[in-house]
Amino acid sequence: MFAYNLDHVALAVRDLETALDDYDRLFGAKAMYREVVSEQGVEEAMIAVGGSFVQLLQPLHPDTPVGRFIESRGEGMHHIAFAVADIDAALAHLKAEGSRLVDEEPRVGGRGARIAFVHPKAFAGTLVELVESSS
Amino acid sequence: MFAYNLDHVALAVRDLETALDDYDRLFGAKAMYREVVSEQGVEEAMIAVGGSFVQLLQPLHPDTPVGRFIESRGEGMHHIAFAVADIDAALAHLKAEGSRLVDEEPRVGGRGARIAFVHPKAFAGTLVELVESSS
Repeated sequence: MFAYNLDHVALAVRDLETALDDYDRLFGAKAMYREVVSEQGVEEAMIAVGGSFVQLLQPLHPDTPVGRFIESRGEGMHHIAFAVADIDAALAHLKAEGSRLVDEEPRVGGRGARIAFVHPKAFAGTLVELVESSS
Repeated sequence: MFAYNLDHVALAVRDLETALDDYDRLFGAKAMYREVVSEQGVEEAMIAVGGSFVQLLQPLHPDTPVGRFIESRGEGMHHIAFAVADIDAALAHLKAEGSRLVDEEPRVGGRGARIAFVHPKAFAGTLVELVESSS
């Protein structure tokens, strides 16, 4: 088993500027980080909430995973991300349990972290991301 | 503006026992609380993750908000809940900003907390719950 924490909750939005303005106006917080992650086809903003983040994801193009998500389901909650100390151990554990994975091996995500997605079929319809922070 | 924290991320599941078993097996944590909240038509389990919770929601009947959610969208992420110190002030702020609310006034939720839901149209398609803890 692996130690973990709640890294972020990701929300897919059509327009990052509008969502950031709304978030600040309604809930009173601004983005701490903002980054284009070309490999994932998104521009993302991280808003600190307690010890975790709300992550806003705007697709760079309609033909990206988040773009297709919005097209089929609309804006809204996209995935939940757990911070793990050792993503290789976490993936090995999930493989041993027979979980369906999106990423068999870690890849590089926002903030230079090593990340991997676990298929929604592995856990009750929810897309789960594992994050091993680079810091 | 109001101080807040991330209270929980709620996932709608068809079967709480299966989801709890899967969660424990895959991510290594058990429920800290479990409660039937008849007013909301759910049985809920709270799994501590860092300083927040993952909340698993099983509808008590198909004809409940969470039951209809699963029927139309399948299992998956349902809402995000922010802990606020003063839910009356938070609701007053959202009303002043013109946000569409599900609950105009707070009602009693799990663990005796005062809660209110904000309509997904208020913030980029995500259903937001405000929670003023009773402790």
